[in-house]
Amino acid sequence: MDQNAIAILGGTGDQGLGLALRFAKAGRPVFIGSRKLERAVAAAQEVRDAVAGAQVEGLDNADAVVQAPIVILSVPFEHTAGTVKAVKERLVADQIVVSMGVPLATAIGDGAVRTVGVWQGSCAELVAALVPAGVHVVSAFQNVSAHRLRELAQPVECDVVVSGASGPRKTVMALCELVPGLRAIDGGPLANARFVEGVTALLIGLNVRYKVPEGVGLRFTGLPER
Amino acid sequence: MDQNAIAILGGTGDQGLGLALRFAKAGRPVFIGSRKLERAVAAAQEVRDAVAGAQVEGLDNADAVVQAPIVILSVPFEHTAGTVKAVKERLVADQIVVSMGVPLATAIGDGAVRTVGVWQGSCAELVAALVPAGVHVVSAFQNVSAHRLRELAQPVECDVVVSGASGPRKTVMALCELVPGLRAIDGGPLANARFVEGVTALLIGLNVRYKVPEGVGLRFTGLPER
Repeated sequence: MDQNAIAILGGTGDQGLGLALRFAKAGRPVFIGSRKLERAVAAAQEVRDAVAGAQVEGLDNADAVVQAPIVILSVPFEHTAGTVKAVKERLVADQIVVSMGVPLATAIGDGAVRTVGVWQGSCAELVAALVPAGVHVVSAFQNVSAHRLRELAQPVECDVVVSGASGPRKTVMALCELVPGLRAIDGGPLANARFVEGVTALLIGLNVRYKVPEGVGLRFTGLPER
Repeated sequence: MDQNAIAILGGTGDQGLGLALRFAKAGRPVFIGSRKLERAVAAAQEVRDAVAGAQVEGLDNADAVVQAPIVILSVPFEHTAGTVKAVKERLVADQIVVSMGVPLATAIGDGAVRTVGVWQGSCAELVAALVPAGVHVVSAFQNVSAHRLRELAQPVECDVVVSGASGPRKTVMALCELVPGLRAIDGGPLANARFVEGVTALLIGLNVRYKVPEGVGLRFTGLPER
């Protein structure tokens, strides 16, 4: 396993592919996972076409998870539990699973921009309840616009609130900073994902009300300079 | 009733007094309400000392609500229902009650920075369930730092998400813009207060982790220019 590699399950979707492009551009080996191998292979080709010298490979989700110490879950909320259950036996201690899902009501066919209640409190905590002991779950990237990720010539201009246990949280915060314009914010313990996931619903509503198809972003003000 | 007046129940607290100072400085008549008349009178004197020519008066909460078309509820969450019940018979149709409370777990003696679940979904919706028919409830100001409100020489530098029915929402958005550095954001229907109230808990955690006693603020990026 290449310690610099990043696996992205559901990496063929808008937001996952956006992250794949950005991490490949930052020089990191990327493994795009999908339920359908041919879609993963096509997405990997799309990244290679956009980023000269990109090290990227398309694989089944189950094959992608064994390739990287960090596994980003970029699947619609309603596929979260199924995806984790399908790959969990291949996860090993100290691997980091990044939850970027949001329990939007679209998961249950409700088109309004709101969330459904998750028994564990958030999508991230649902994931944490499903992974084997020793695997770390970190919450991040929920509020980053897919459109802005994919505009490779532009910085993304968004803060990313990263929540989870201290060590893995720092690892994922460093990952955010590979992307120009993203700033990692220490979001404290994983349960704070409840607040962060809610912000996504708020942002989607703003995109609609203010007619910003590129996606509204978020910045925290008054933080000390790094 | 002076149509430009603003009543602030719990206006002797940090955040309420901060708003009183700012609205008085903007030239609006302000009525500070409190459960204890002498505290309201003292707070009004504090505003007059800080703002030359301030039109401000300290009253019992029940006397303050009849003075203004907009009544801001600036009491700790655990006093929200009690305060509304104590004044509701004096509220009249088309008056606007602004909910700025957040159901922090401190209300039940839990010192961690998290929220408690409110049956109606949010503090703002709890308030909406208690006021008489015809009275409008709007959610705003939850995420504005009391410290920054009280630094009258400085702009506050924070976005205020305003949620509620369209007409009253626009009225409260205009109110936000009286304060230098505050920008009103159209937060859609009142139920979106659920997300906004959660952000407060996130911001309080950031204040602690990043050691920002003045209070971290929030800005949305990518919105069209006004």
